[in-house]
Amino acid sequence: AVRLRVREALGAREPADAVRVQGWVRSVRSQKEVLFLHINDGSSLESLQVVADPSLEKRQVHLKDLTFGSAVEVEGKLVKSPHRMQNMELQAETIRVVGPCDIWSFPLKMKERHPLEYVRQFPHLRCRSNTLGALLRIRSEATAGIHSFFQDNGYVHIHTPIITSNDCEGAGELFEIETSSEAKESAEKTHFFNVPAFLTVSGQLHLEVMAGAFTHVFTFGPTFRAENSQSRRHLAEFYMVEAELSFTESLQDIMQVMEDLFKTVTSTVLSKCPQDVELFHKYIAPAQKVMHVLFSSSCRISYSEAVEILKQAPQTFTFKPEWGCDLQTEHEKYLVKHCGEVPVFVVNYPYDLKPFYMRDNEDGPQHTVAAVDLLVPGVGELCGGSLREERLPFLESRLQRLALTDAYQWYLDLRKFGSVPHGGFGMGFERYLQYILGVDNIKDVIPFPRFSHSCLL
Amino acid sequence: AVRLRVREALGAREPADAVRVQGWVRSVRSQKEVLFLHINDGSSLESLQVVADPSLEKRQVHLKDLTFGSAVEVEGKLVKSPHRMQNMELQAETIRVVGPCDIWSFPLKMKERHPLEYVRQFPHLRCRSNTLGALLRIRSEATAGIHSFFQDNGYVHIHTPIITSNDCEGAGELFEIETSSEAKESAEKTHFFNVPAFLTVSGQLHLEVMAGAFTHVFTFGPTFRAENSQSRRHLAEFYMVEAELSFTESLQDIMQVMEDLFKTVTSTVLSKCPQDVELFHKYIAPAQKVMHVLFSSSCRISYSEAVEILKQAPQTFTFKPEWGCDLQTEHEKYLVKHCGEVPVFVVNYPYDLKPFYMRDNEDGPQHTVAAVDLLVPGVGELCGGSLREERLPFLESRLQRLALTDAYQWYLDLRKFGSVPHGGFGMGFERYLQYILGVDNIKDVIPFPRFSHSCLL
Repeated sequence: AVRLRVREALGAREPADAVRVQGWVRSVRSQKEVLFLHINDGSSLESLQVVADPSLEKRQVHLKDLTFGSAVEVEGKLVKSPHRMQNMELQAETIRVVGPCDIWSFPLKMKERHPLEYVRQFPHLRCRSNTLGALLRIRSEATAGIHSFFQDNGYVHIHTPIITSNDCEGAGELFEIETSSEAKESAEKTHFFNVPAFLTVSGQLHLEVMAGAFTHVFTFGPTFRAENSQSRRHLAEFYMVEAELSFTESLQDIMQVMEDLFKTVTSTVLSKCPQDVELFHKYIAPAQKVMHVLFSSSCRISYSEAVEILKQAPQTFTFKPEWGCDLQTEHEKYLVKHCGEVPVFVVNYPYDLKPFYMRDNEDGPQHTVAAVDLLVPGVGELCGGSLREERLPFLESRLQRLALTDAYQWYLDLRKFGSVPHGGFGMGFERYLQYILGVDNIKDVIPFPRFSHSCLL
Repeated sequence: AVRLRVREALGAREPADAVRVQGWVRSVRSQKEVLFLHINDGSSLESLQVVADPSLEKRQVHLKDLTFGSAVEVEGKLVKSPHRMQNMELQAETIRVVGPCDIWSFPLKMKERHPLEYVRQFPHLRCRSNTLGALLRIRSEATAGIHSFFQDNGYVHIHTPIITSNDCEGAGELFEIETSSEAKESAEKTHFFNVPAFLTVSGQLHLEVMAGAFTHVFTFGPTFRAENSQSRRHLAEFYMVEAELSFTESLQDIMQVMEDLFKTVTSTVLSKCPQDVELFHKYIAPAQKVMHVLFSSSCRISYSEAVEILKQAPQTFTFKPEWGCDLQTEHEKYLVKHCGEVPVFVVNYPYDLKPFYMRDNEDGPQHTVAAVDLLVPGVGELCGGSLREERLPFLESRLQRLALTDAYQWYLDLRKFGSVPHGGFGMGFERYLQYILGVDNIKDVIPFPRFSHSCLL
């Protein structure tokens, strides 16, 4: 028998004899005349309908185990389905239960649409629900789409390190690493790496190293924040896509890549898994429309304009908007609404708010740097980027004021030997998925969420 | 002017006016009649030759900065080169030094082939050497090739977690994670995740979760070992490709995927970066031949056969070969030589040597599990895989004997609810690169190597 995946069987053009399909039972319905099964193997959201003579159940001894959740192997004929809703179905000649499923203790139930909060309790089983299955297929296609986008545009992929000895970027609370033995005998401490080592918060500085040899580089990997937050938008371990471009003198170039990346990956996802995306837009976020997430229009304002807009807002904010202060979630939300619920680029932030590596705009008295954040409806900050300070004297004096000159000697070196104007950005991958799918909680768009007080499996 | 990358300029079919090329100077040669530059931008190993009238140097004031390592922007005409070795060259009309390079303190020198050990001292600059540039392009193409291979074969990509609470797989010394504040006040410890958390040593168990919903899954990410080793084959942070297949009952299926993966990715690399690969085979490992790494033949022996071969070897080993003992590097080397310097699959290892999840072969008295290691010339173990124990009673009794039942309740669940025969493998990505390129030291095939006593940048 020819082994077919469910997706292949469903998409077959011609009937075929001697076909074998393997997967998990998603429904069983036994009627007088006929036994209906639906088999899913993860290759598509749709399951394959299997039709069997009920006498098969009597002849084949193990079929008492043929329940929801059991693993089966079915052989038979693939035929055109008489039903309008599906193309092909499988007429079973033999059914073998490969692995039974104790339906009484199995937390998923047949034909139930379990809420995301419910299945989140079962990180080892939730991938078998329709919603998480669809999510993981989409996540996989989006991952491939990101690699293709950069590959097709001549970017070199760089594995930036996960463990780093940089600890002073000021990007929030860090995780520190020790060997298990160190952790135990903390009295007299020798570090495995000789120096304190941390989990990376961003691959940017390492990408900048590479941007001194390759004009276009990117990385796509895990990043970490030890923030004690239970927010629906934060994880302790999350994925970030980061790109760095050399010989770039305007924020516009950076914004263009953000937009191109977003559009290309989203159209890949929409074309590769239309049914999976539809599930989200139908059941999870009915208000979310596909058109909505196509980035067909966007808005661009400066930070200073943003503050003016907020000051003139008819509503009162918990945090009073003031030039020089960070934009809060409530502010971001208002700005997106003010611009008509479209993606909003906010550019040129206060010099004193931003890290040392951002390029000085040399303006004043409201002194800014060439930074850009992309805010999107429902999610807030999706991307953040900037031009980097490529001018040695500017960088030297800023590092000196921060007493970081020694730690960043290597970073200064990059400006001594063939420095070029450059810039880049990072996009939070989970927030991207939240946005295009309308998923409220970030814990539902990553296979194994890690956050404060929780590290299951 | 039209901006072209060096690769595009070199590959152009037709001459063109008003072309702009940006990059870093790899050589400068000033003759009476003419000034020659070579410009590289990382898009290819080959640099673009720029030809200028020396008077340009006098007219353009900044050209005193036109040195090796400086960043430049050149505009001019792209013309057919009169030299046989190159297709096109650029006749400069203007040259602008974007970022000068202090050649006296710059550790790389013009036209010198610096040894890999030398450039390893400069992790922030070594990507500008020909060898590391070539390596990073190859690594990028191999990464893309791995994603494509699995994508094209219907595998779902899974981001398995980096931080995990599993600590008892016995895969060597672990790194433990704490928040910086925890690390400081070690007296009264509360964990960020409530439980001790570690850096992953393998994504396998998490892939097995996913193999209960998708028949083909893979992951490709960083893994960690806190081994205090200065070996040329070990890193504290390295990348692993891992795949898991459901409904698989034979090791042969697993070996076939290993081989297909290897062949597909290698042929991608060879076709995408022939010049870069040639650099390695010419200057780094002259003995390495392309044919050598094509996996055109391989050998398959059982562990028991391997031990017999070793016992009958005319040489004496530091570790005496004995059934039930691990194969040492010296043993692996001998086996590969014995088989004619081809890849060697070794199957069916002693039950007591291997982790709890490997499938019991139920043989005896020499009790084995269905495990497979792939050994390759020069590198040793490249891949390791196994069938997993899918039978609940076998797994339960093994976990019970190891007193791990409580910790792995979730893993037992996978066998209670629709368990299927399955298996998978992992391939060390750096070792793969070492093998196909003939690079002796693993520190030279990863952008930022981390090993005991070293975590630079």
